[in-house]
Amino acid sequence: MLRVPYDELSETFQRILLKLQFQSNRAQLCARLFADASRDGVASHGLNRFPQFVRMIQKGLILVDAEPALVASFGALERWDGNSGPGNLNAHACMDRAIALSRKHGVGCVALANTNHWMRGGNYGWQAADAGVIGVCWTNTHPNLPPWGASDPRVGNNPLIIAVPRPQGHVVLDMAMSQFSYGALASHRLRGEQLPVEGGFDSAGRLTKDPAAIEATRRPLPIGYWKGSGLALLLDMLRSRARIQAFPGLHRL
Amino acid sequence: MLRVPYDELSETFQRILLKLQFQSNRAQLCARLFADASRDGVASHGLNRFPQFVRMIQKGLILVDAEPALVASFGALERWDGNSGPGNLNAHACMDRAIALSRKHGVGCVALANTNHWMRGGNYGWQAADAGVIGVCWTNTHPNLPPWGASDPRVGNNPLIIAVPRPQGHVVLDMAMSQFSYGALASHRLRGEQLPVEGGFDSAGRLTKDPAAIEATRRPLPIGYWKGSGLALLLDMLRSRARIQAFPGLHRL
Repeated sequence: MLRVPYDELSETFQRILLKLQFQSNRAQLCARLFADASRDGVASHGLNRFPQFVRMIQKGLILVDAEPALVASFGALERWDGNSGPGNLNAHACMDRAIALSRKHGVGCVALANTNHWMRGGNYGWQAADAGVIGVCWTNTHPNLPPWGASDPRVGNNPLIIAVPRPQGHVVLDMAMSQFSYGALASHRLRGEQLPVEGGFDSAGRLTKDPAAIEATRRPLPIGYWKGSGLALLLDMLRSRARIQAFPGLHRL
Repeated sequence: MLRVPYDELSETFQRILLKLQFQSNRAQLCARLFADASRDGVASHGLNRFPQFVRMIQKGLILVDAEPALVASFGALERWDGNSGPGNLNAHACMDRAIALSRKHGVGCVALANTNHWMRGGNYGWQAADAGVIGVCWTNTHPNLPPWGASDPRVGNNPLIIAVPRPQGHVVLDMAMSQFSYGALASHRLRGEQLPVEGGFDSAGRLTKDPAAIEATRRPLPIGYWKGSGLALLLDMLRSRARIQAFPGLHRL
């Protein structure tokens, strides 16, 4: 076990990104988003994913200077094109835009296409909560989860994020739609650990706790257990928050 | 097994509601919402729930003539007071309002308080989809689901509805946050059936398929299996729909 201080991690990311021709402020934000993920325990979308991010830049799949552009707009709803820019910077920009829309219209909804992996989705939930607004966001991915009762992966284990701001500490739900995300499977495998509960099927079609076996079949189980419980909790919180926060003048109602 | 034609069921509901002093158009809508639930296989919130609905009216807990009133408004976001009216009529009125807001602002969000049980939440998803818009709604309930790892019910098994309109047939997800809703537990019990998978804990703290045992402890398991898979599917669909439907002029992008 090696402990790396947060600042050292973030500054190292930043230095590498500057060498890859990121503008200074974009290198700083991109580095922070990667470092935050590792700091909060989601290393699969922090440090562990950074080398792949660098390779995709070197291959020209991620364009470091590309910024999202507005494609269409209708009131509180907007569509943006990510122009193949860095996924985390694109997502951050679009959450900023959704926050701005919500300040004007009460609700803001932004769709982003033609982008790259947003890395840890929870970052954009924290971003919303830090701005004092409820944040709900999700993305899709390649088909990597079989529909219930099927054996072929046909839907994505699309992560869903729900963030509720609170003075005493925000509550942010960030979960893939499989009981264990591919990132979590990899983390368990790298630590040489079995999953705490059965997480999917092995090549013989049997339920298994072996992360590598599930990575091989791409047949994880859909969410349940603590994830189902977490979603129930957040629906409770969203409802009570909607009453209080949406209309600060009406706290007592 | 007794087969009752849909029209006979709906007209019987309507006749009873008229006797309970519902205005004619409200009796008709309320009867349809109850009948639709039974027709679609959600008898727990259709015919099976109707007698309790009538008793609550007779006790003065549901006020048949009460209509929701706007409490506060900010752009695409509104808060309504249900004035203790019939829960299904209140919810229907607020979904209508959310649809109208979405036509103006691109998105509409309506919160409803001081109302009664909305019965089958899926009705309002179908309502949105029939209007050609994506519908997302949920409600809360009494604490009837333990958080993961706990034994006391502290969160609600809050139902979540996501509806996606499609020319070839809408897709509507309507699910409680417990693997089996209390309505589904009652339905299995009344049919003398065990649950297909373990659905919660019995009084000895063991996982069980016995619906009555779970009703007694109020310790159902949170969602998973087909419900997790259903949510993953809808997140996929929402994303592709957002691209196509929100901006009808931009189909080809």
